[in-house]
Amino acid sequence: MFHVEQISKMDLKKEIREIPDYPKKGISFKDVTTLFKNKNAMRYVTDVISDNFKTKGITKVVGLEARGFVFGGAIANRLDAGFVPVRKKGKLPGDVVNESYELEYGVDSVEMHADALDGSDVVLIHDDLLATGGTAVAALNLVKKCGVKNVYFSFICDLEFIETPNKILLKEYETQVLVKY
Amino acid sequence: MFHVEQISKMDLKKEIREIPDYPKKGISFKDVTTLFKNKNAMRYVTDVISDNFKTKGITKVVGLEARGFVFGGAIANRLDAGFVPVRKKGKLPGDVVNESYELEYGVDSVEMHADALDGSDVVLIHDDLLATGGTAVAALNLVKKCGVKNVYFSFICDLEFIETPNKILLKEYETQVLVKY
Repeated sequence: MFHVEQISKMDLKKEIREIPDYPKKGISFKDVTTLFKNKNAMRYVTDVISDNFKTKGITKVVGLEARGFVFGGAIANRLDAGFVPVRKKGKLPGDVVNESYELEYGVDSVEMHADALDGSDVVLIHDDLLATGGTAVAALNLVKKCGVKNVYFSFICDLEFIETPNKILLKEYETQVLVKY
Repeated sequence: MFHVEQISKMDLKKEIREIPDYPKKGISFKDVTTLFKNKNAMRYVTDVISDNFKTKGITKVVGLEARGFVFGGAIANRLDAGFVPVRKKGKLPGDVVNESYELEYGVDSVEMHADALDGSDVVLIHDDLLATGGTAVAALNLVKKCGVKNVYFSFICDLEFIETPNKILLKEYETQVLVKY
């Protein structure tokens, strides 16, 4: 268990808008765009995540489409690393590796360029929200397919009340979470 | 005509992979993911754009889904600004403003949260690629609908061989382009 506790001086939960019954009844959607638009929160999140991983030798930040691209790009810049997008199927123009994951009903898949990473890379996988862990584990498998051994994770939010086998698997990796629900 | 010429010390064109006949025959697709993954290019592009706009008092960087989010986030962080996403229709959970634009065949539309900006904001609209200018002008109209008066643009690439009325309209705005085709 390598979960890194981060004591936030800024109360980020206040910056995340909750939208009731979206996208369907009973779900309280966590809208991080209100955090993105606040320059203090934007700077704070980038600082806290970059500081946490600055000694790890991160060479590439892998961001998950689409909200994971925003801080993914900012953190890559701050860590002096490259940025690699994981996208929904069919969006990347070059040769890709593909990984499927289960949805509530059915299956979806994500892709990454096959030449985006190699065994020498140290990777930070970033997304805004950890819910079931389905896309996070799919991204992990894509990264592993490229031969990467050293992988870290960062998420702005973790919906801890959702417990899944994928989330147990992710506990093997050093993971930074800023806001827990 | 306020086009800002940027003399690049780094030859960014070399960092952008061209994929022939993608997404269809006769089109040479400009794949910026090869630039994203190069940490030197990642740093260079963020530096050059942030430096260019640092005296403008930018309060929000507006990034266009999805590739515009990567440097959009990095530039927002460097300019100490907030970040606002413009997304495809139906992706944003709150109340939105909507703007349609023409495609080769048919019409598409983009959205922004209605409360993302107000008349006091100074906005930099960023995207990776300027082709017909359709989405850029749609984003401009969204920003104007929120009462914003001061708008700048940055693009990594401009496909200058594509000439459209939208691109003539954009010439009224101070625009930074790093790579021209």
